[in-house]
Amino acid sequence: MICGRTEKQFMEEVERFHGFVAPGLLIGGYMVDAIREKISEKVEADAIVETAHCLPDAVQILTPCTIGNGWLKIVNLGKFAITMFDRHTFKGVRVYMDLKKLGSHKNIYNWYMGLVSKKDLPKEILIGSILEAKKDILSSKEVVLREHGKRVKKSTVAVCENCHEAYFASQGDVCLACQGKDYYEITR
Amino acid sequence: MICGRTEKQFMEEVERFHGFVAPGLLIGGYMVDAIREKISEKVEADAIVETAHCLPDAVQILTPCTIGNGWLKIVNLGKFAITMFDRHTFKGVRVYMDLKKLGSHKNIYNWYMGLVSKKDLPKEILIGSILEAKKDILSSKEVVLREHGKRVKKSTVAVCENCHEAYFASQGDVCLACQGKDYYEITR
Repeated sequence: MICGRTEKQFMEEVERFHGFVAPGLLIGGYMVDAIREKISEKVEADAIVETAHCLPDAVQILTPCTIGNGWLKIVNLGKFAITMFDRHTFKGVRVYMDLKKLGSHKNIYNWYMGLVSKKDLPKEILIGSILEAKKDILSSKEVVLREHGKRVKKSTVAVCENCHEAYFASQGDVCLACQGKDYYEITR
Repeated sequence: MICGRTEKQFMEEVERFHGFVAPGLLIGGYMVDAIREKISEKVEADAIVETAHCLPDAVQILTPCTIGNGWLKIVNLGKFAITMFDRHTFKGVRVYMDLKKLGSHKNIYNWYMGLVSKKDLPKEILIGSILEAKKDILSSKEVVLREHGKRVKKSTVAVCENCHEAYFASQGDVCLACQGKDYYEITR
């Protein structure tokens, strides 16, 4: 079971939202479930994921926290870990993939460490290994947040003198795009 | 209509996913719809949003692009704009809130520029104004991406000597968290 759903139900939701069943997202489901055993659903909990790969979608499917409502943040430490915390006390739980526990789960270890090709370890086999391991490969610690706990307020809006679009005034006299940080050329 | 749904259906989806109907998310829905008029659903299109407020959820609800599958990126320029582009040619469309068109939509203008309190402009009235304006407040440009168009490959994974967790080797000899960029204290 993952947050009150069967694994099959969860994988169907993953397919609808994420486009396909990703191994990391299935592990992410067990991670959120492990956190929910320690932090009740009654607690108003915000979430932080430590990688943009897969984990944000596990949180967005299984909790009220999304990127767009600001209750989910990505702090890009390149780690496979999720923290959820009481948004009033900043106290919470960090769940992570525990390498020490992967010794008896070779398929998951080899995939996670990038030691095996998709050809040598087909996704179906890997998913099977994850469904078998469930939460055995995870550990958790109680934590208190030092940073990133506060919800971000929107900054004051100004009109950029150059492009005449609205932007966050905190970025300077003209908008970041007009400071050269845009990512596109207009073709028409 | 917003991407084949009635506004009522879309607002119900927003409430389920985002937790509540946010004005910005409703406008985001019209933005994605405006893009879809120019880029067919048959094109494999990735998305960029220029703010983390609201817009990511419009894209995640209405398209296959999510943060976790990497087809949606946030390039934080603090602007209310969405670009979708053909992931093979990097050609696409950027839709943005057009201040010049807000002259005849005073409620939306006052809310967007932060000139009015929630008390003086209740959400229901503002939502009504947005439902009336629909796509009249938006403009779009054809663009070609100079940056951020490529999908990000996962970096090589290494084991941190200090905390013994796995991390992206590109970050250095020890993981970013052990370099002091963590956000939490372990309490237990």
